Parts: sequence; C-alpha cells; structure tokens
Amino acid sequence: MNSMNKIKSYAEEAARNTSIVVRERDVERVLAAIMLSSNFWKIVQLAEEPVPMVAELIQLMARDGLIAIEDNDIKLTQEGEAFCKAERIEALHTHLCPTCKGRTIVLDDSLKRPYEKFLELHQERPEAIRQYDQAYVTPETTFARISLADGRGDIRGRDIIVLGDDDMVALALAITKLPRRVVMLEIDERIVDFQKKKAAELGLSNLEVRRHDLRKPLPEDLLKSFDVFFCDPPETVAALAAFVGRGVATLKGMGGAGYFGLTSSESSFVKWRQLEQVLINKGLVVTDIIRNFNEYVNWNYAEEMLAWKLAPVKVKPVDNWYYSSIFRVEVVEEIPLDNEDLTDSDIYNDSESSTV
Amino acid sequence: MNSMNKIKSYAEEAARNTSIVVRERDVERVLAAIMLSSNFWKIVQLAEEPVPMVAELIQLMARDGLIAIEDNDIKLTQEGEAFCKAERIEALHTHLCPTCKGRTIVLDDSLKRPYEKFLELHQERPEAIRQYDQAYVTPETTFARISLADGRGDIRGRDIIVLGDDDMVALALAITKLPRRVVMLEIDERIVDFQKKKAAELGLSNLEVRRHDLRKPLPEDLLKSFDVFFCDPPETVAALAAFVGRGVATLKGMGGAGYFGLTSSESSFVKWRQLEQVLINKGLVVTDIIRNFNEYVNWNYAEEMLAWKLAPVKVKPVDNWYYSSIFRVEVVEEIPLDNEDLTDSDIYNDSESSTV
Repeated sequence: MNSMNKIKSYAEEAARNTSIVVRERDVERVLAAIMLSSNFWKIVQLAEEPVPMVAELIQLMARDGLIAIEDNDIKLTQEGEAFCKAERIEALHTHLCPTCKGRTIVLDDSLKRPYEKFLELHQERPEAIRQYDQAYVTPETTFARISLADGRGDIRGRDIIVLGDDDMVALALAITKLPRRVVMLEIDERIVDFQKKKAAELGLSNLEVRRHDLRKPLPEDLLKSFDVFFCDPPETVAALAAFVGRGVATLKGMGGAGYFGLTSSESSFVKWRQLEQVLINKGLVVTDIIRNFNEYVNWNYAEEMLAWKLAPVKVKPVDNWYYSSIFRVEVVEEIPLDNEDLTDSDIYNDSESSTV
Repeated sequence: MNSMNKIKSYAEEAARNTSIVVRERDVERVLAAIMLSSNFWKIVQLAEEPVPMVAELIQLMARDGLIAIEDNDIKLTQEGEAFCKAERIEALHTHLCPTCKGRTIVLDDSLKRPYEKFLELHQERPEAIRQYDQAYVTPETTFARISLADGRGDIRGRDIIVLGDDDMVALALAITKLPRRVVMLEIDERIVDFQKKKAAELGLSNLEVRRHDLRKPLPEDLLKSFDVFFCDPPETVAALAAFVGRGVATLKGMGGAGYFGLTSSESSFVKWRQLEQVLINKGLVVTDIIRNFNEYVNWNYAEEMLAWKLAPVKVKPVDNWYYSSIFRVEVVEEIPLDNEDLTDSDIYNDSESSTV
C-alpha cells in the first residue's frame, strides 16, 4: 500500500470507529501537530480536531509503528518521520500575532481599570463543576470578548443579555459601566449568588442577575428586549440551535447581534457547517469567525470526562489546551422563533463531544 | 417624531431610494463613523456599509440639518450631535491590535526574504484598469494572505490555484518556494505577461501562468487537481457563486480549502448571508472570517466609477479606504458542480456594487 492510500485508510478506519467524518486532511493535521508537541492535550489543541478523532488516529498509527507512546509522550517513530517526509507533511507555522495572539484586538487603556477590578473579583469565583458541564475562560478572554464587541458597536449604550454565564461576562460588562442594561441568566446558584453579591458590593445598578434553566422557555419579559446576546452553549447541533435560538428570541430584531464560541475539540468542520446552516435558518449572518479566540482554564474534573477515558496517555493537562473560536452573528431577517420547553430532550451528547 | 422613529424613517427612506435593505443599526453606524472622520471615503470604511447606502443616508441627514457638508468635509451639526447624544450613538472604539492591525497573523522572519523580493518586483507591476474591474491589494496584504494560509496548513507542499490574480498571489507563492505547484489563471494579458516574465527571470519552475477568462469553463486538466484555491471575485451573489464554484471544481475533494475576499463597501450583511448560503450549498464550511484583512491600493479610475457619482463630495481618496474581509472555506461534503459557460450572463452588477 503506498502512503497516500495509507492516509486514506487511516481516515476511513478512524471514521468507522468513532462515527465522525474523518478526511485525509484531518489525518495530516494530527501528524503535523505531533511534530510540534508530544503532549496529548497540546496535540489536540494544535490539530484542531475532535478529541475522539485524535485519540483514535494516534492509537491506529501507534499500532502500525508510525507513532510511539512512551512515558506519556507521543512521538513519531523513524518510520513515522519518513512517512511524513514522503507525504510532505510539515510542522505547522502559525505566524500568529505575538501581541493579540490571533484575537485581532487588544486590551487597551480604555478598559484597563475595569479589567483590573475584574481580575481581583475573579480570584474568588466559584470553580467549574461537572454537573453543569462548566469550563470557564480566562479573565483576559472575557475582556477580549468585550473589546471585540465594543469594536463592533455592540457595547456602549446597548441592552445586553448573557445566557449562561460561567465566564462572568455580565459582571465584567457591568463593571465597565458602558452598556445601558445587562441581564444575566444562569442555572448554577453559586454563579448567580456570586454575581449578585459582587454587583451589590460594587453598587452596579445596571446588572440584573436571574437564576434560570435555559432548557425552559425564556421569561416573557425578556423576549424582544435586547440589542446583543452572549452565550457559550454545549456543542451538539441541537444544543447550539436551542441556545442561539434563545439568544435571537431576546433580540429586538433586525441588526441585533450575538456572540458564542465553537471549538474544534468537540466539533468537526462537518458539524460547524451544520451549525452555520442553523444560523442562516434563524435569519442570521455570520460576520466574524476568529479562530481560538477563547482560552479556557483547565477544569478540575478532567479525570471524570470522556476525553480522559479516550486519551491514549493518562496525564493531566498542565497548560490550557481547550480553545474555542468566536462567532459573531447579526440579524438580517426576522424569523419567528418558538420559545419551547427543552427540559426533556437530550441535547447535550453526540459522537464528537467528550468533555461533558 | 421622536428620534428613535427618526432613525427608523431614515432607514426606510434610504432603503426605498437605493433598493438595499437598510436597518436602524446601519443608520447608527454611519453616524458613528462621521464622529471619527469628515472624509467621505474614510466614513465608508469605518461604517462598513455599502457606498450607495452611506451616500444616500448622508444626503438625507444633510437635508434635515443633522449633517453639514462644507469644503468637502462631512460633519455633524449641533443638532446632529444632540441627536446622537440622545440616541446614545458614540464614536467607535475598535481596540484593534496595533501589531497585526486585526489580521491575527504577522509577517515574521520565515517569510521576510521572499517578501522583500516581492516588494521589489511589485514596483514594476501593471496598474489597475477599469476594463477588468481591477483593484489590487497592498504587497503586505498579499503576504498576509500567504501567512494566514500557511498557519492553516494550506501552503507547504500543496498544489495551489489562483483564479484571477490582480493581487500577484501566485507570483508571491512561487517566490516562497513552499507550495508544490502553483497555477494562475488571469484574463488580463498584462498581468499574465508580467508574472511569466518575472517567473522566468527568477527561475521559478513551480509557477504556471495561463491566460483564461473565468466566465468560460475551466480547462479540463485543472479540474479536481488542487488542494487550495485563492480568488477575489466581483461581489454580486451570482459572480461570487460562479467564481467560488470554479474554485471548488479545481479542488481534489474533501478537505480542500479556499480563500476569497468580501467587502462591506459593496455588500451589505444581507448579501453576506445569501453568499454564506451559497457556500454551504457547495459543500463548504466557513472556517474563518477576519474583518478588513485585505487592504486595497487606491486605483486610478476612481472618477469613472459609480461610487464617485454617488459620493456627496467629489474629493479623491488619499488614504486607502477600500478593505475586504477574508473568508476561508473548506470542503466537508463533495457536491458535483457544473463547469458551465457564463460568458453571456450579466453577473457583475447589483444594487450594492459601485466601484465597477
């Protein structure tokens, strides 16, 4: 079998074993990532592919002697190196901007003071727990989101809703004092209490915090009331469709904007395309997709998640490895949306998810 | 009439007069842009709205005394300022990264030498002419595209086709010597000759330059033969669909990638959404949208284009004002595409285009 066919056969075998669409290009990406790091979690980050796919491909190529797994390190063997050379698979050169790390925007002086205040509060925040599938972003990421949205005219004088707020976007927005109104909905009582308490301590009268399970219909008084929504939903097509749908339902209408994250670790590009179709169907245009904008802090329940079980080496991630791309959408057609109850539907799992 | 209704009525009136969908948000964007610049072309750039819409809104608001046009400067009147204050419309804060200017990537040392070589050649390049609707990007932009694509694994060892190459992407790629093969198709004999001559002078054996009218079917030998395409098509839905379709037809299949630009100056977000639907229908996923990535050099035929006729002040642009966002797409479903002849169909004009 020549090597091109070999790549194809790995793609096909991995696809059969994981129920994920795997293309030859995906196999090449995993190999290119292994050239840059021997750490499983870093490889997942660099390959920008779903965890179950990366784990499976590593197992298959280790079986065939292209990869060696030793002392928790994942490396190409001599045979693997020769294979990559023949295939012209090279280590990735990202050319990433060292200043903004590919985010397009920076935390400049105008938001520095609110950011410092937020950093203080952040140290006391509740930890991520598995019960709500939590993983929160770095404080820098929270403010990067605000900076990006400010650059799109989505912050100053705006009415903003945050649907699920593990990332403390609502509290951060309130601290900047730039929006007209900020409403936050969250199921986790700890986060609700934390933001309420901090808002009271700081006298932030523009922040309204409500406990709410987003699977349930939105409170009527929040429909058609906002200019902008933020959310960071679980990454099945059903969950994303549901949460973004909730977001759109809160918007006043044409020109309303929304922000959410989408990973490669839980979602292949096949799934991204399905989600993009969902967005278009909801009357939205995608105006920005900035790769790996959101950096998540490693969570404490790593060993309980499916990704851990799948990982070919059982070593805890040290550096942050879980990133998501930020999507910005805008309403260009008003399409009536349901406000249905989703409590009883399983919207949280599919073949590509592994960190729940 | 209260001011909120006033914004709405401007949106409605401008929509009637231009046949473009105009939302209240678009009116606000134009006002926010006027707070930052009094130059028409700069206002178009900052507002990120189609030229005909910006021109129309300025005329309407000047008629009502919110805007004054004096000595080629466009400014808010006192009444206009009070109006914006009441509406909480503020000047935009972009927070743009000063290093990469929002491009996410930088020109680093690894591409420095080819870039310098390219800069030299660029000084001798043919000027943009109206006959082919040309407007080329800065040399920095050409290399920024290559850096971005390199970071996505789309350059090294790849077979790359450039469909229409006013921007000299093919020549630049060949100079880097990183791709396996580069093919360029272009209708303008001057550009074909220039790239041929320079490739011969530099001994670039990996570059193949062909004269071709992209409205005609692609040569059979180029179908299903490439990993990556670049193009920068005219911005009607029909033209973009046709050119991107040509690009996809040249790709080997699953995992193939494409790059193209889309402006706000010629395309409203309503049109962006239509284009995104076209992309999805062609089996593509959008993986990146980076705002205002491409910077175009002001062209010499400014006074001949529709935008000039529409401009409320007849002053030539000094700074570059025409930008486009870069889209990256990837094939996740193989959908059979026609290779049809489009010579006789008018794919170049719609209500939002004005620089042809």
